[in-house]
Amino acid sequence: MPIKLAIIGAGKIATDEHLPAIDAGNTFELVALVDPNLDTDATTTPATFASLDALATSEIAIDAVTLAVPPQIRHTVATQAIAAGWHVMLEKPPGITLTEVIDLGQRAERAGVVLYASWHSRHAPGIEAARQALAGRRIQRIDIDWREDVTVTHPGQAWIWQAGGLGVFDPGINAFSILTALVDTPVRATRAHLDMPSNCDAPIAAELAFVTGDDIPIAAVFDFRHTGAPGWTIDIQTDAGPVQLGDGGAQLHVDDQLVVDATKDEYAGVYARYARCIENMRSDCDIAPFRLVADVFLIGTRGVVDAFYE
Amino acid sequence: MPIKLAIIGAGKIATDEHLPAIDAGNTFELVALVDPNLDTDATTTPATFASLDALATSEIAIDAVTLAVPPQIRHTVATQAIAAGWHVMLEKPPGITLTEVIDLGQRAERAGVVLYASWHSRHAPGIEAARQALAGRRIQRIDIDWREDVTVTHPGQAWIWQAGGLGVFDPGINAFSILTALVDTPVRATRAHLDMPSNCDAPIAAELAFVTGDDIPIAAVFDFRHTGAPGWTIDIQTDAGPVQLGDGGAQLHVDDQLVVDATKDEYAGVYARYARCIENMRSDCDIAPFRLVADVFLIGTRGVVDAFYE
Repeated sequence: MPIKLAIIGAGKIATDEHLPAIDAGNTFELVALVDPNLDTDATTTPATFASLDALATSEIAIDAVTLAVPPQIRHTVATQAIAAGWHVMLEKPPGITLTEVIDLGQRAERAGVVLYASWHSRHAPGIEAARQALAGRRIQRIDIDWREDVTVTHPGQAWIWQAGGLGVFDPGINAFSILTALVDTPVRATRAHLDMPSNCDAPIAAELAFVTGDDIPIAAVFDFRHTGAPGWTIDIQTDAGPVQLGDGGAQLHVDDQLVVDATKDEYAGVYARYARCIENMRSDCDIAPFRLVADVFLIGTRGVVDAFYE
Repeated sequence: MPIKLAIIGAGKIATDEHLPAIDAGNTFELVALVDPNLDTDATTTPATFASLDALATSEIAIDAVTLAVPPQIRHTVATQAIAAGWHVMLEKPPGITLTEVIDLGQRAERAGVVLYASWHSRHAPGIEAARQALAGRRIQRIDIDWREDVTVTHPGQAWIWQAGGLGVFDPGINAFSILTALVDTPVRATRAHLDMPSNCDAPIAAELAFVTGDDIPIAAVFDFRHTGAPGWTIDIQTDAGPVQLGDGGAQLHVDDQLVVDATKDEYAGVYARYARCIENMRSDCDIAPFRLVADVFLIGTRGVVDAFYE
């Protein structure tokens, strides 16, 4: 029997990724969509509601929800969903503060439901193959380059520039989620500079330095002011040749040979993992990628740059 | 037999607090002091060394160290101390990033030594009495006011203004360490504004809002630009009257009655706890106060204020 799912937040990521992934699989059945901007109709499939309260007081049975709302309201909505007795998947980032996520984990445990803090980039087609390629090699250096045109990838998403919206770290945290999955010692931030547009509360670009537990250097450049096709690459130099992820993990070169070249399909893996969490009644709340953002914000120097207007 | 201790970093906090506390007790024996600014002499008591390497290669037996160095070098020095097989106490804050502390915890566990991330303000005379006064009362609101003249409390300490130095959160984290010891649900930051001097990489003042897990509001004001005697107060309104900590926890009023009025003596408690950690071979690494600073840095808006010159 499929897991009866409601998606909370019917914005870009829900439309682009969640709905197609649920449609393509048979583990979850989408029974409701909740968004204040929807025309509401409890008789359609999926049924549509303007609020979580309206869904909770409807006749519709729900097992689990996916929260694809902006991070600033994620904790409030997740708290309601947990109180309703539903399993909760959080889109990334899992909140605006680390303690919110800790708090939700405790609430989920008390309520006997599963909390899954998802990191979609970890399910990109090249990640598992990259892990296998790295096994037995010694990493010597990692360079991350994460550039995109924010007006294309986040059109009209004002929340990204507000406090808690993370700015360029909203995509950058995807790189961190891959990095922390590939390196098995804690990755420590050692230097950070953040470019802050004069009219925004979140950075538009960043230059970062890290080390692994074995003192292997990692450099990262994040930039939202890029034009043209996005560049999402992680280049790993090893003692036996380069391991290079491209297109956010959809492409993989090992020793300069192209070994994975897939269209990006991350959300099948996200929902497979969510299903496994529910089946085993085990939460999955790895905050390491978000903690790395917090670390960068703790040590980052900041410079004011040109105002951002979309 | 006393625990043979070395203090790494012979600055203000070591002189003002650590040395008198160790002298007054009989659990620890101070056998060495390490600081690049000391005249070194391996034959004095305590013996003095310019570096951890010099101590490690000396004939002097060490069981445990206290790190009272600036936070920017704490991880490097702690890593060396753990590798030497010594127990490690970290002054607060325990590092410049959260992941550093996680990393040190893992290293200590692998090395079979104790890591103790100390929070001296939790050992202020009024804290335990405040906890007891709060048991059975319902908290309705908390106001934190943490003001001091940085030129008096941190004279010439340039590290506090550098990236990772935390600025006014260096004393502010003491308030957080008390707060997180008194409130037994996770405290979530909801709003933060940081005043950044135009010539510094760390805030000089902050206005903060939090909630407890029961949605009780908490407000905090931190300010380094205060003149005169410091004001370190936590006012807790409860359903049965006020519980008020003054002088950083050395004073306690319950229902407007003065019930604790001690001279500040926190480090006896710090060393008693360190001794217990070592006796039980159990690390104590609560990062909640530091995580709260990270949360504030994640969501904080920032305004540029007058440059700071000492």
